[in-house]
Amino acid sequence: MPGRCIEFFFDVGSPYSYLAATQMERVGARAGLPVRWRPFLLGGVFRATGNEMPARVPAKARYMIDDLTRWARHYGVPLRIPSRFPVVTLRPQRALVHVETTAPHALATAAMELFRAYWAEDLDPTSDAVLARAADVAGLPRDELLAAIEAQPVKDALRATTEEAVARGAFGAPTMFVGDAMFWGNDRLELLVESVRAS
Amino acid sequence: MPGRCIEFFFDVGSPYSYLAATQMERVGARAGLPVRWRPFLLGGVFRATGNEMPARVPAKARYMIDDLTRWARHYGVPLRIPSRFPVVTLRPQRALVHVETTAPHALATAAMELFRAYWAEDLDPTSDAVLARAADVAGLPRDELLAAIEAQPVKDALRATTEEAVARGAFGAPTMFVGDAMFWGNDRLELLVESVRAS
Repeated sequence: MPGRCIEFFFDVGSPYSYLAATQMERVGARAGLPVRWRPFLLGGVFRATGNEMPARVPAKARYMIDDLTRWARHYGVPLRIPSRFPVVTLRPQRALVHVETTAPHALATAAMELFRAYWAEDLDPTSDAVLARAADVAGLPRDELLAAIEAQPVKDALRATTEEAVARGAFGAPTMFVGDAMFWGNDRLELLVESVRAS
Repeated sequence: MPGRCIEFFFDVGSPYSYLAATQMERVGARAGLPVRWRPFLLGGVFRATGNEMPARVPAKARYMIDDLTRWARHYGVPLRIPSRFPVVTLRPQRALVHVETTAPHALATAAMELFRAYWAEDLDPTSDAVLARAADVAGLPRDELLAAIEAQPVKDALRATTEEAVARGAFGAPTMFVGDAMFWGNDRLELLVESVRAS
């Protein structure tokens, strides 16, 4: 089917978004589809849908650490549980919207830089220092990126993407779409590939 | 490691328990470990942990139907979304505790009979008619099984198993243990096998 792609809605504050992000290139190749990275705000999704972060339930929060560690081992990717979790991801997500707008070819690279800083290096993804790294890998002026975080069109674009995801059925992160078909979680990437291949 | 097994905590009212149940024989074979089926009460787990059923969030409930359908296709097992969901599973879970006590070799067979009735045939797993089928496949007198549902030792045993699962970290269903290692969801069966093989 021409024009199809995998839309990958993610938030750098979400560990399962990080795990999925490390696999998207491989998933796109296996599905034979391009991947469109779409930064959104998971906190906004939770507010709109009445869903809550899994770590709200203490027993689930304890389990999540083992679970994330197993996935990281399974994928062969680095993972360090951050000392600060959760964080408000408005700044990094807006920064990525700015990259999406001004250097779309560098969006995945910039997003991976923020993901790795938070989930592999235990750095603060909301800090100017880490955001500057995203600007660097995207080839954008640091000042411009930091200023964009406070720009109304960037704020509006992040809100619009979040509302779009919710309107299409999203309630968590990561959320992938192939057309109308929605898949939630890095643990559904294999079913996504299977579904694309069967259609 | 001698004496190890996969403990499979399940509730016939849980669709992801059904999906896992259809795979446990294969999972046990791949992990090289026997599977011990352990009926517990998911409602009791939710009450004890503050967790809630995923269908509480409307967007998640809508997604779950697609998700369950995809898993059923992936496994090649029948699935019909029941017209009555959720149901209070005290009666079937107690019936399975009775099977566990009096005919342990038949527990998996009896559990699969109840799972299939609810998740593939849209029958009421709390009804005498369906419970009688579980008695039949377990080779137990129907009257005895129906009477056992109201017996105090059976009630106590179901409560004890539920409390044990919670004490060990469970917050949902299905929950699998290999020793202290806990795995939640049919979507973690591959990680369970991987973890056993690596240890």
